[in-house]
Amino acid sequence: MSFYAKGFIDLTYQPSKTDLVALFRVEPAFGVEMDEACGAVAAESSVGTWTKVSTSTKKIMDKRARVFEINGKYCKIAYPSELFEGGNMPQILSSVAGNIFGMNVVENLRLEDIHFPPKLDKTFPGPKYGIPGIRKILKVKKRPLVGTIVKPKIGLDWKEHAKIAYEAWIGGCDIVKDDENLTSQVFNPFEKRVIETLRMRDKAEKETGEKKVYMPNISAETIEMLDRGEFVKDHGGRYIMVDIITCGWSGLQTVREANLGIIHAHRAMHAAITRNKTHGVSMLTVAKCARMVGVDQLHIGTAVGKMDGGVQEVEAIDREIELSFIREKGASHLLAEEWGKMKPVFAVASGGVHPGMIPKIMKIMGNDVIIQLGGGIHGHPKGTRAGAKAARAAVESTVARFPLDQVKVPELHEALEHWKV
Amino acid sequence: MSFYAKGFIDLTYQPSKTDLVALFRVEPAFGVEMDEACGAVAAESSVGTWTKVSTSTKKIMDKRARVFEINGKYCKIAYPSELFEGGNMPQILSSVAGNIFGMNVVENLRLEDIHFPPKLDKTFPGPKYGIPGIRKILKVKKRPLVGTIVKPKIGLDWKEHAKIAYEAWIGGCDIVKDDENLTSQVFNPFEKRVIETLRMRDKAEKETGEKKVYMPNISAETIEMLDRGEFVKDHGGRYIMVDIITCGWSGLQTVREANLGIIHAHRAMHAAITRNKTHGVSMLTVAKCARMVGVDQLHIGTAVGKMDGGVQEVEAIDREIELSFIREKGASHLLAEEWGKMKPVFAVASGGVHPGMIPKIMKIMGNDVIIQLGGGIHGHPKGTRAGAKAARAAVESTVARFPLDQVKVPELHEALEHWKV
Repeated sequence: MSFYAKGFIDLTYQPSKTDLVALFRVEPAFGVEMDEACGAVAAESSVGTWTKVSTSTKKIMDKRARVFEINGKYCKIAYPSELFEGGNMPQILSSVAGNIFGMNVVENLRLEDIHFPPKLDKTFPGPKYGIPGIRKILKVKKRPLVGTIVKPKIGLDWKEHAKIAYEAWIGGCDIVKDDENLTSQVFNPFEKRVIETLRMRDKAEKETGEKKVYMPNISAETIEMLDRGEFVKDHGGRYIMVDIITCGWSGLQTVREANLGIIHAHRAMHAAITRNKTHGVSMLTVAKCARMVGVDQLHIGTAVGKMDGGVQEVEAIDREIELSFIREKGASHLLAEEWGKMKPVFAVASGGVHPGMIPKIMKIMGNDVIIQLGGGIHGHPKGTRAGAKAARAAVESTVARFPLDQVKVPELHEALEHWKV
Repeated sequence: MSFYAKGFIDLTYQPSKTDLVALFRVEPAFGVEMDEACGAVAAESSVGTWTKVSTSTKKIMDKRARVFEINGKYCKIAYPSELFEGGNMPQILSSVAGNIFGMNVVENLRLEDIHFPPKLDKTFPGPKYGIPGIRKILKVKKRPLVGTIVKPKIGLDWKEHAKIAYEAWIGGCDIVKDDENLTSQVFNPFEKRVIETLRMRDKAEKETGEKKVYMPNISAETIEMLDRGEFVKDHGGRYIMVDIITCGWSGLQTVREANLGIIHAHRAMHAAITRNKTHGVSMLTVAKCARMVGVDQLHIGTAVGKMDGGVQEVEAIDREIELSFIREKGASHLLAEEWGKMKPVFAVASGGVHPGMIPKIMKIMGNDVIIQLGGGIHGHPKGTRAGAKAARAAVESTVARFPLDQVKVPELHEALEHWKV
């Protein structure tokens, strides 16, 4: 091992309570030893570089990151918290998830988890509403919320959009959201869509006596996002939706600070970073960052739908964003986390879901989940309203531990028949 | 092939001049045919989903994306430009680089390139300064610019930081930048660092008679970034630096619109997305998006340093961000691009560079490159000033086509000896 990397390895080191700890899966490049690669990662992500520099000193090396555990392909690195700027998510990620992925000494590198020390946690606001706040506003105490994405995801004009939303609400949906690629297109401008869809929401609330939610996608340049969020608020909206990966952390933090309403976080593009199990950043890590920054709802996968993401992964993320304490679990590559008073984020199961999958989703994710069906509602043979009725019935029956095929709701039977599990 | 995916394939289709074209490398999941996978990608990234929905119509299907070429593992998809919101990079990426990476029908998926139609190009500002603007301000007509990153990358206080910057300028550097993980830490607060470093810059300019540049890293939540950028401007700075991946596109667009000075784009974390050659998004695509949004300088790799990225890749990105017209090159998986009047971005070669590598870098990247040496300057046996002198001599000698080992600058000889190529 090079003298240089060696300085960043200390297997006797015990992380302090204020250290940030990162867990990496490391595949060294051909001819590079594991400890050399781990040491280089610790160096590049803290106070080191590829060569000894004349300007470094003992005082600075005291601030270094330390590899304190190497176990097979995994290593843990502890970072003194003074290396980080509180409340600055881009800075934290530029450190522990920055240049390191491109280094020649590693063939593949995956950031599996970050343990944020309470000291750093406290510099982020967390969700303003979270699960309890959302349940209170919607007056739905226990059951999962039923949501839909207006489909086709793009191409409808604002009137068609609002009409389909209305059908979904009347059928039984609590939530209707825009899709990730619909923002403000010529054929469906944001302002017109928001006004018309919120008007239909009011109508649906009046007719059903239930609280109904519309989540318009405000994703754009930051100031434009704020303007759109204010517009929604001014027109009686309570929710906004942001594509958190394509907008990025700076913009998301700004939206959170502006207090524009409940924040629904869509994760479009995440799988470019999170899907490969040997390289990139885990969705678990992305989800923790999102909880700290303060989204209220987050897509975390379904484990059963059209998107990648196994049961174990979805369960782990679900627990991570909803519990207040996470215990370290070596075999699952989970670090401990004390979330303290930071509110729980509502997990969203979305992507290729139809009513027949709902019992499985609830078995994995419990009652604190927003189950979103797009194609699985608008693809119902009898249309959107029937699809929403089927989805709502499936949720309520599962809460009541009643098998779906015995529920006396014809729309549900039609859905089960149409999409055979 | 499913009836559904089939609707998104049209191998007779000729893309129109207003279509956006995306080039993907597709590895279908086990048991899935290539055309099925390609059709599903086109559907999910435009107007379709996994099932037929009652709410779709012919009018909407006219707006669909079309797979118009499949060639081995590669396919090209054309998207009608009306699917996109002009000037909204998050929206464009949520469409063509969104959910698709997580779909079960693909095992791996890589977005290799995007051709932006001129119609969409024009909705973005591009660089405000670019190469000509920067050369004019710095009064350096032809040679590559010589830059350094203050090292150690983090840990110095503001006075030490400014002093090292001064040494680098006096030695011959044009540019001094913060590192990607240094923003505003307790031991080195942003405001103090900017004031002190710009003071030293003025001193260095006076003593050398040359224009000198300091690039402070403003990466943070968006409003904080704007405040920091204004602070720099108010104190006589001309440049700011942003970690464009960890900050994200919404924040970057906001910074560009605020006209805070020349924008230096650091790409920390990019390799989590770009490095895998079978999955994710190519650095070429990221670079094109950055040019459109309007960064003036962009890290694109060195092809020879501590970071991954081969010669062919670096050359392609270099041409893409600096030329005004790019011809389609099937074998290299490049799409055509007409940049028109959009200014060229100054390519930055950075990461594990020392003076001995400079001729190779200039052979690949030409004279329009900013060569940044961090360890390769501060790691010089005689310190920062000597390191800067060596780097500047290496650049000037290479411009004059003079072999480095014959240059009569002792500092350069020491550098060549210290880091044998």
